[in-house]
Amino acid sequence: MARIGVFDSGVGGLTVLKEMYQRAPWHTFVYFGDTARCPYGNKSQETVVRYSLENSAFLISQGIDYLVVACNTATALALDELQKQCSVPVIGVVEPAAMEASARTRNGRIGVIGTRSTIHSFVYQRALQQLKDDICVYTQACPLFVPLVEEKYKTRAVIQEIVKEYLAPLKQQRVDTLLLGCTHYPLLFEYIRQEMGDEVAIIDPACACASLVKNISEDHKSEQTVSQRFQFFVSDDPSRFLTTARDFFGDTLQDLPCIAVVQDEVSTAS
Amino acid sequence: MARIGVFDSGVGGLTVLKEMYQRAPWHTFVYFGDTARCPYGNKSQETVVRYSLENSAFLISQGIDYLVVACNTATALALDELQKQCSVPVIGVVEPAAMEASARTRNGRIGVIGTRSTIHSFVYQRALQQLKDDICVYTQACPLFVPLVEEKYKTRAVIQEIVKEYLAPLKQQRVDTLLLGCTHYPLLFEYIRQEMGDEVAIIDPACACASLVKNISEDHKSEQTVSQRFQFFVSDDPSRFLTTARDFFGDTLQDLPCIAVVQDEVSTAS
Repeated sequence: MARIGVFDSGVGGLTVLKEMYQRAPWHTFVYFGDTARCPYGNKSQETVVRYSLENSAFLISQGIDYLVVACNTATALALDELQKQCSVPVIGVVEPAAMEASARTRNGRIGVIGTRSTIHSFVYQRALQQLKDDICVYTQACPLFVPLVEEKYKTRAVIQEIVKEYLAPLKQQRVDTLLLGCTHYPLLFEYIRQEMGDEVAIIDPACACASLVKNISEDHKSEQTVSQRFQFFVSDDPSRFLTTARDFFGDTLQDLPCIAVVQDEVSTAS
Repeated sequence: MARIGVFDSGVGGLTVLKEMYQRAPWHTFVYFGDTARCPYGNKSQETVVRYSLENSAFLISQGIDYLVVACNTATALALDELQKQCSVPVIGVVEPAAMEASARTRNGRIGVIGTRSTIHSFVYQRALQQLKDDICVYTQACPLFVPLVEEKYKTRAVIQEIVKEYLAPLKQQRVDTLLLGCTHYPLLFEYIRQEMGDEVAIIDPACACASLVKNISEDHKSEQTVSQRFQFFVSDDPSRFLTTARDFFGDTLQDLPCIAVVQDEVSTAS
């Protein structure tokens, strides 16, 4: 087993955490959600790098062996700097996803959707073209997807219309593989699947990243209970975060506390 | 003239700044947009109070005479604390708007829309019922309005559908006055007007607040040029903020710098 630190701008990284836990339940996980400063997707590189370094320093102080950046924007804008400055190995979501997408495409035409910052960073274009130089990458920022998910907006016709509009240019380019370059987007999977059709492979970086983490250590021996395997920290009020975390993990987390880390001050809510 | 400090979580407060400048161009204005930590509308009271106190301390260090909290969420959650702790008079957007709404209603049924945090704070309900105890207040959080405005989303049918859905319960309650309890909402005015019809009075707190600020001082003597009347500070990259500020103020601000304030470090972009 290994102790894996995971951070995200908020709740989105729980999609990555869940996939990691399902594939490698023998690890222990320390999750930090920067809920007091989220979202990252429309902020500058300088700011996202600063936040990412602060989040990492906090997780490293919790004794982690590996750091997973479960946020596409932070991976896109800050991974290089994190790998330079952190004392533990740092794994981002971009590279594993790019490897899977490049393995899956048949026609060499890959679509990537993400936040404005992720798309403008060209991180997926670079990663994909380093793997295969004849790959064509078509990108589209989908800035309303995160609020639609975060606000649990329910009107199906409106969501489908927005999904249709964002994905139209990628359909027109006949991509056969679509990479979901934001941790929130898998929560819109059924709408995206309906729009793209069954022929297009849809790549969720959470799954690709979790497969990588599974291989870190296959030493399954551990006496810890499920709830001892998780620790949650957030930078804003923990109660709303915990509700969402329980949506993801169900009763497993029923009695697990979540700790708010506000600068020097630490308070607990259960 | 007076030196007026104004803060908002980001660009939304520019609607308030513009109204103040139009009514009282003899004041000078120092604006701080907390773009590195926006939005505030879904964050906890503890966090919004902390951010508001930090923003105010910064503006007070710039030598302001008055502080305007041009953000409904910050007014709702932090005004009491700001008035206790600040060394200058603090004006929020809620009270002037509530006064105008209570003066305008004929049937005593007022609708209020805002972010989730503003609505859950009950600040408008309290303010309105203190003014007239027989007023009925109906509220509705509209959490997708800010992202629709911030992302400059353009598809009219989708926007109208979302507006229709959020406003339906207020129409059903036969409100004759609708208070826009978020600085971004005036930018959706035409959609809101279409949905509510011409009979409903729509109250923009920016206008109500600006009328109050006009009365602070009517001493019009000042030798400063228009561009000397404004100073802008933000906590993230200034370039995107400046683009929006210029959308609001046009060529007036062409050569005006905006300064990024990141903790101890100060850098300038023009």
